[in-house]
Amino acid sequence: MSYFDNFMLANQAYVALHGTKYLPIKPKTKVAIVTCMDSRLHVAQALGLALGDAHILRNAGGRVTEDMIRSLVISQQQMGTREIVVLHHTDCGAQTFTNQAFAEHIKTELGVDVAGQDFLPFTDVEESVREDMALLKASPLIPDDVEINGAVYDVDTGRMTEVKP
Amino acid sequence: MSYFDNFMLANQAYVALHGTKYLPIKPKTKVAIVTCMDSRLHVAQALGLALGDAHILRNAGGRVTEDMIRSLVISQQQMGTREIVVLHHTDCGAQTFTNQAFAEHIKTELGVDVAGQDFLPFTDVEESVREDMALLKASPLIPDDVEINGAVYDVDTGRMTEVKP
Repeated sequence: MSYFDNFMLANQAYVALHGTKYLPIKPKTKVAIVTCMDSRLHVAQALGLALGDAHILRNAGGRVTEDMIRSLVISQQQMGTREIVVLHHTDCGAQTFTNQAFAEHIKTELGVDVAGQDFLPFTDVEESVREDMALLKASPLIPDDVEINGAVYDVDTGRMTEVKP
Repeated sequence: MSYFDNFMLANQAYVALHGTKYLPIKPKTKVAIVTCMDSRLHVAQALGLALGDAHILRNAGGRVTEDMIRSLVISQQQMGTREIVVLHHTDCGAQTFTNQAFAEHIKTELGVDVAGQDFLPFTDVEESVREDMALLKASPLIPDDVEINGAVYDVDTGRMTEVKP
């Protein structure tokens, strides 16, 4: 049995609890949360979000990439969000490699040359939050009056600590 | 009070429930879930995931973009995941626009010309899951023995329905 089968089984039980509800497509809080894919962060629980409350965007590191901007523009221009939270975390996978070492690993493991590609690793997690907040501020696709906040999530304690720009 | 302040407040309560735990950086199930930012989908609850179980990657539509591949390569090559679930959903924001109409809206609203950029809208949600599963299968950066499954999540009922490739 693959884990997919297990997820489908768990979902059968979830459906019974969920019931039928018709929540609006536009998030109630008008917030989009930009964060990491890390398995130790359950965003809805950690921030007290109910179903329908906020957009949750996650990639490796919680970095502001071109695709993150694409998603945020849809979130804001189609779905009405007006606030962004950049949430990185302690002990991040993006702190475990350098681009050069990773490219060498990919070359050996998969036979693919990704030299020169930025996989967006970082060393200082507060600095990476500030960098990504600055990228959002600088983007012509994010209106100036959108509120942008940042924080670091501690994967051991579950605690969020604010990071000022 | 912005919603960020409210999230910080909710997080204080979460910390008390969380306690201190040291979960490994590598996800227990070795699964990465590729899904949408939609506010009506709480992935951990809907799939029965505990903290530490799986990577969760989310963008507008749950689409397989270059940044999604970047994240999956890190997930697999640094964090040991070996299975991917592509999970799109009913009533998706990516079904509410065309690239052309969206570019016109952006031009009017933000004064930025994004003509020619693909914001990855779709019409048929099962077809979009199949497309993205095919993109993963075709990528030289995703090993052939990685298991790839797909499903559609119903935002009204919470039910997942499998989509075959």
